[in-house]
Amino acid sequence: MNSEIDSTRERLQQIDALIYPYIESNNSTLAKALYQLVVSGGKRIRPRLALLTGNMLGAEPQPLLRLAAAIEMLHIATLVHDDLIDRAALRRGIATLNSHWSSAATTLTGDFAFAVAAQLAVQADSFPVMRLFTETLGSMVGGEILQLSSAKGISMREDYYRWIQAKTASLFELAAGAAARLSQADDDVVAVARKFGHEIGMAFQIIDDVLDFTGQEASLGKPVGNDLRQGTVTLPALYYLEAHPDDPTLVSVIQRNGHTPDSLERLIATIRDSRAIERAISEAEGFVQNSLTSLEAFPETPERQALAAVARQIIPTSIYAQRKATANV
Amino acid sequence: MNSEIDSTRERLQQIDALIYPYIESNNSTLAKALYQLVVSGGKRIRPRLALLTGNMLGAEPQPLLRLAAAIEMLHIATLVHDDLIDRAALRRGIATLNSHWSSAATTLTGDFAFAVAAQLAVQADSFPVMRLFTETLGSMVGGEILQLSSAKGISMREDYYRWIQAKTASLFELAAGAAARLSQADDDVVAVARKFGHEIGMAFQIIDDVLDFTGQEASLGKPVGNDLRQGTVTLPALYYLEAHPDDPTLVSVIQRNGHTPDSLERLIATIRDSRAIERAISEAEGFVQNSLTSLEAFPETPERQALAAVARQIIPTSIYAQRKATANV
Repeated sequence: MNSEIDSTRERLQQIDALIYPYIESNNSTLAKALYQLVVSGGKRIRPRLALLTGNMLGAEPQPLLRLAAAIEMLHIATLVHDDLIDRAALRRGIATLNSHWSSAATTLTGDFAFAVAAQLAVQADSFPVMRLFTETLGSMVGGEILQLSSAKGISMREDYYRWIQAKTASLFELAAGAAARLSQADDDVVAVARKFGHEIGMAFQIIDDVLDFTGQEASLGKPVGNDLRQGTVTLPALYYLEAHPDDPTLVSVIQRNGHTPDSLERLIATIRDSRAIERAISEAEGFVQNSLTSLEAFPETPERQALAAVARQIIPTSIYAQRKATANV
Repeated sequence: MNSEIDSTRERLQQIDALIYPYIESNNSTLAKALYQLVVSGGKRIRPRLALLTGNMLGAEPQPLLRLAAAIEMLHIATLVHDDLIDRAALRRGIATLNSHWSSAATTLTGDFAFAVAAQLAVQADSFPVMRLFTETLGSMVGGEILQLSSAKGISMREDYYRWIQAKTASLFELAAGAAARLSQADDDVVAVARKFGHEIGMAFQIIDDVLDFTGQEASLGKPVGNDLRQGTVTLPALYYLEAHPDDPTLVSVIQRNGHTPDSLERLIATIRDSRAIERAISEAEGFVQNSLTSLEAFPETPERQALAAVARQIIPTSIYAQRKATANV
């Protein structure tokens, strides 16, 4: 399994080598900023899913690499526009483009990243993959619209799940599903791969939303409690709401009425120390468990083991310290 | 030929019918704004080129319609983001989204339009068409980056031509070229179609840039002299610069140094009344003439005649009044 991980690491470097020429061909400040964002990296979990799934199912290496690179670039493109939409100031611990650039430059940088993503996706040389790619784009944009255009914040778990499926899980679904499609796998195998990607993606987003309450600014790369401060209601807040339906501050955030900054900071701290965190983590664990069950449909290979390891790592062990602290609250 | 034009009109309505369901499926203010932009229409010259070229060369009607719809939506997506980038206040005579919306909402509306375009393009059911579509996207974004990221304004005609090819002519090239590709035409026929589209597109942009000086606000749908006021140097200004290389106001616009608003307004009026206008129109006429020559390679059909009519209409007869007035200046 270690050699599988090593060879995946090598292929991730090959992905960077595919992306850079596109960016370097454009000799602008804007391309340099995009380069910084690609280099700063993140965990590359989406291309890892694509590479492992494709290798497990026998995809051709070159088209698979291009698909994986396209998925990472699509992710980066959505980060750039989302940071503008959310007015985020920090991303991966460095200042976001929109925090020191005009919206025009930020918009254009995201467009550029998206254009590179589309050109890489075409290089995977598969029409069904292009179809999945554009469907995913539609889903992700639809998710952002849902968030931006709602008159009120989310107040039901069903709406939250629909939202994170559209904005996050759809890209994980693409990573595993398109890689399976590239492998000429049967439709039912592709469907299992998509389901696996969906489950990983749901767990990933829930954990991201939990860490927004429980993480440290240094490791988050952004301020704690940022979501609620932006008016974005996520799963921990929704579980807290179910237990405290009349909490005046949370109700006012959802209704998009005014509230004092002090009461909001108190609410963030209260949710962080409540059982809502425990419940949200359990929900993420359920998705991880489902993803492991989905994996059993695949041949028992080193790649399948590596995918299982990726699934288990979605929930960082550090989160359990928090869980223990709140379990009896 | 009239019946050809009538049937093209009917097909243009079918295009709207393809676009609307995507937009209507999203019940947001943002989708409603996009709907307004689609309805307000414009001349639909790009989808007309695609439909006429495809019909001339025997493309299947349904994929061709989808391609034409995708091209119009890609055009609309770039309008939305370009208006943000140019900080334009009026487009097609109505307020641009960015003039009364946040940059976040404007960015997202453009992304939504782009996602619809990509989904329509996939429905043309042709991998070579998807490849051309993404190449064009790369070219158009590259053109905008060139414009936004240059430390100085354009001062050479070569740079201007490279820029308008990237931002405008590439989409016309896609319209005719992808329609030819969809017709299973030979590579050399596709190449002629692309060349035809390129020439039409170059003429179209030059005329647009001339009208920015000579048009009336009412028919332009935006203020006269807007380009230069935004620091954008186009062909009339470049011809004027060749005759007056030391004009202090124009030099300061290109160098992006300060200048007084009064001197800029005087410069706009001076260029409008100069022979630079005449020269730019002649340049556009040259491109139209080349496009008509390209057309001769195609079978003599009603569609070819209609394409020639489209080419001739790129230069509006009203522009000649201006030309006559300045010919002896």
